[in-house]
Amino acid sequence: MSIEAAVTELRKALGERFATSGAMLQVHGQNEAHFPETLPDGVAFPETTEEVARIVRTCAAHGCPIVPWGTGTSLEGNALPFDGGITLDLSRMDKVLAVHAEDMDAVVQPGVTREALNTELRATGLFFPVDPGANASLGGMAATRASGTTAVRYGTMRENVLALEVVLADGRIIRTGSRARKSSSGYDLTRLMIGSEGTLGIITELTLRLQGQPEAVSAAICRFDDIRGAVDTVIQTIQMSVPIARMEFVDAMTARGFNLHADAGLPEAPHLFLEFHGSESAVAEQAETVAGLAHENGGADFQWSVRPEERTRLWKMRHGVHYAMLALQPGFKPVVTDICVPISRLADAVAETRADIDASRITGAVVGHVGDGNFHTSLLTEPGNEDDMRTALDLAKRMNDRALRMGGTITGEHGVGRGKIRYMAAEHGEAWDVMAQIKRTLDPQNILNPGKVVQIG
Amino acid sequence: MSIEAAVTELRKALGERFATSGAMLQVHGQNEAHFPETLPDGVAFPETTEEVARIVRTCAAHGCPIVPWGTGTSLEGNALPFDGGITLDLSRMDKVLAVHAEDMDAVVQPGVTREALNTELRATGLFFPVDPGANASLGGMAATRASGTTAVRYGTMRENVLALEVVLADGRIIRTGSRARKSSSGYDLTRLMIGSEGTLGIITELTLRLQGQPEAVSAAICRFDDIRGAVDTVIQTIQMSVPIARMEFVDAMTARGFNLHADAGLPEAPHLFLEFHGSESAVAEQAETVAGLAHENGGADFQWSVRPEERTRLWKMRHGVHYAMLALQPGFKPVVTDICVPISRLADAVAETRADIDASRITGAVVGHVGDGNFHTSLLTEPGNEDDMRTALDLAKRMNDRALRMGGTITGEHGVGRGKIRYMAAEHGEAWDVMAQIKRTLDPQNILNPGKVVQIG
Ligand SMILES: Cc1cc2nc3c(=O)[nH]c(=O)nc-3n(C[C@H](O)[C@H](O)[C@H](O)COP(=O)(O)OP(=O)(O)OC[C@H]3O[C@@H](n4cnc5c(N)ncnc54)[C@H](O)[C@@H]3O)c2cc1C
Ligand SMILES: Cc1cc2nc3c(=O)[nH]c(=O)nc-3n(C[C@H](O)[C@H](O)[C@H](O)COP(=O)(O)OP(=O)(O)OC[C@H]3O[C@@H](n4cnc5c(N)ncnc54)[C@H](O)[C@@H]3O)c2cc1C
Repeated sequence: MSIEAAVTELRKALGERFATSGAMLQVHGQNEAHFPETLPDGVAFPETTEEVARIVRTCAAHGCPIVPWGTGTSLEGNALPFDGGITLDLSRMDKVLAVHAEDMDAVVQPGVTREALNTELRATGLFFPVDPGANASLGGMAATRASGTTAVRYGTMRENVLALEVVLADGRIIRTGSRARKSSSGYDLTRLMIGSEGTLGIITELTLRLQGQPEAVSAAICRFDDIRGAVDTVIQTIQMSVPIARMEFVDAMTARGFNLHADAGLPEAPHLFLEFHGSESAVAEQAETVAGLAHENGGADFQWSVRPEERTRLWKMRHGVHYAMLALQPGFKPVVTDICVPISRLADAVAETRADIDASRITGAVVGHVGDGNFHTSLLTEPGNEDDMRTALDLAKRMNDRALRMGGTITGEHGVGRGKIRYMAAEHGEAWDVMAQIKRTLDPQNILNPGKVVQIG
Repeated sequence: MSIEAAVTELRKALGERFATSGAMLQVHGQNEAHFPETLPDGVAFPETTEEVARIVRTCAAHGCPIVPWGTGTSLEGNALPFDGGITLDLSRMDKVLAVHAEDMDAVVQPGVTREALNTELRATGLFFPVDPGANASLGGMAATRASGTTAVRYGTMRENVLALEVVLADGRIIRTGSRARKSSSGYDLTRLMIGSEGTLGIITELTLRLQGQPEAVSAAICRFDDIRGAVDTVIQTIQMSVPIARMEFVDAMTARGFNLHADAGLPEAPHLFLEFHGSESAVAEQAETVAGLAHENGGADFQWSVRPEERTRLWKMRHGVHYAMLALQPGFKPVVTDICVPISRLADAVAETRADIDASRITGAVVGHVGDGNFHTSLLTEPGNEDDMRTALDLAKRMNDRALRMGGTITGEHGVGRGKIRYMAAEHGEAWDVMAQIKRTLDPQNILNPGKVVQIG
């Protein structure tokens, strides 16, 4: 393998669209979690699928690692080039290629961000529902099988991608899926690529399923005395099949973070943040049902509103949660966890996790897409403090063990990246070997985002 | 390869649970479509996963083909042993292993049929929504990525399976997925197995996502003067995000079939059959909205009812559609088609197909899960009449070409089997080669349902 030869060749081929400046390498060596800076040897900015294919063929010829990069917001070191090589920055492939309003689908390049897409869709009465909070790229979101606040109603990237164009490790360009809503035509390569984190191919185009903008939207917030009351409200809402659009839990520590970061003026207690989509009457009916459940579970101060300003304020606050948590200890770095359990185990999982953090030496906050059984902690560590890091990683390990014990998964939405790889054997057993078999078949040289998701060699 | 050696060994190992009698071979050599009888060399009836693994290892040792069999209702020769070998009949693995009502999931063996599961679930307030009409096995439904009348609301097998246990071609037993609602933990092997038609592994256990039984259900039927009025009603319903539970189209010829087969007393005109799920008020609101759309599109006689008897009558009639179509020409065999197109092309696709059949020498009827853009024709051929068969296959080819031209797929839900394999290259291009690569990796001897989905060697 020769990274150097690939760098030389790509510089010649791409000119100013191949960067090796220190600043540019640094931008692509960062992450929003606790992984140390990890620099690539060069950053390529392709503009077309054919160009991606050419870059991949060059890297293949030299056995040079190639790591796709969307907006770099992933939290498990997913886009960091731990083995060096080329970072493939897809931000210049940022065109919405087609909106088929009648069919409720859109065709986009991978560098389009979800906010850019939704801005472009506004006039059509449609929207793309998957919302990870961060303004991530749609390619990155597909690659991590992202979801977020709205998955409880609209599903994850798995349910909302119809078709892909993908460049494989040997430079072949394939199309998976079609614009049909459903198909039984052969192996589901679309779903195989979704969640593969750039290890099986580079996504160069996505056909996305869109939703109609709801006639009415209302948001609500409700405070609880304890975690269990909040989580039980969630469980009952799901069991009653209320088609709730968002259902987010924050614990008391997170509420404190919102107060520090966004001057939120929240009581420092557990809260649920809710959103309802539907017709005017459906939205009112849903809110009433959930208010009733909340009340029975000790919820207080259930406030709901159809006013867009209040909704925007609520979700802006919620989307800033990552930074609100960091505000609890400025300068500290987060170890972010991401387990997902069957909903009947959710109250236990959250309560045990909260107690575990409370008994430790570090600060941590809990927040969750609880309608799906998915929640995160941000475990704050002082840079360079090894005791902090050990404690955080140990808490994370206990969370992951807990998730598996409860029949859940170590990652509900952030992906495996580098951070979770040590748990893959425990979660999947021999199925992890099967993943490696597939990786070896499609990328025999192990050049596509090596060291992530599976372990080769 | 020696089928004979495998047969000898399996007979010894399984005793009366290995059949080679002519009658039993014949049962497993039939299909509900036009494929000629195709007998296996023996039929194994395993009772446990370990037994499946042992049978697979025996077959692997002798290079003997092994074809899984659920209830044999698939329509593309999917479960027929065209290369001989062992049919693996999973009907004795028919236990519901667990119902987790709180988590809204159930764990079942592959031979459980959807009706058996729903009978078992009745008291829990939950149901499994995927409904292909036929009382198929859940293993077979997963293997074909089945859907049916309710997919427009609840999705297909792709969306409703959480986890699988699978025996691979070398006898390894793996578990894919978990009971968590969502996960980003590695490659989506669950979705890779769903739709693989027994060519990548034998499904020995499924964890299924359940739905709450709706508070209220109403059904409706509406007659139209022409195809376009019916289909435009569908398109507008979908575009308005009405969460309709079922939305089925039948053409005038199918209505005639219902009259012959079930004494339905329907006007021989296109119809929509509809179902609404939700709260009392939501169901009423939805029915009103759709009635309005139907009226604007020339629909007449929109009748809706919440009475269970009428609903049952309607869906019993609809579920008998396969046999109603056969009643149009008793003794004839059907070539069944199954295209799915983007919804904006649906009216054209149906109208062109109808005109094409009308211009041909044979009788055919059109029926569709039109809310998804999916529709079928049953093209009736006289046994032994080669002109009929040529005509039917030619009409089917033109439908498949039409689907691809319109950005759709050659199979919305029946799968590829043997019947559709000739269109796979046209639909998938190089992606079909990738499917074959995966097949070769996971089944290097090509013993699992050979000759289906992909072409090896
Ligand atoms: C504040 C904050 C909140 C967040 N909240 C959520 C949340 O609620 N839900 C959630 O799911 N995630 C969340 N995340 C994580 C992150 O936003 C997601 O993982 C997102 O999907 C990453 O998208 P990206 O464009 O930044 O991808 P990157 O971080 O650039 O890349 C992610 C992975 O995908 C690969 N990749 C990128 N583009 C492509 C491509 N075109 N083809 C193939 N592979 C590619 C990369 O190699 C890498 O492995 C959050 C992150 C932050 C910082
Ligand atoms: C009247 C009628 C109406 C129909 N309507 C619909 C419809 O609306 N929607 C729809 O989707 N289909 C429909 N079908 C087709 C059929 O019901 C489906 O394809 C169904 O999923 C087949 O299930 P089965 O148990 O009969 O499988 P089989 O026909 O026995 O097998 C189907 C395929 O799956 C494989 N297989 C079976 N079990 C397993 C297992 N445990 N592990 C791995 N592979 C396995 C077989 O090898 C074969 O390739 C209809 C069929 C009829 C006769």
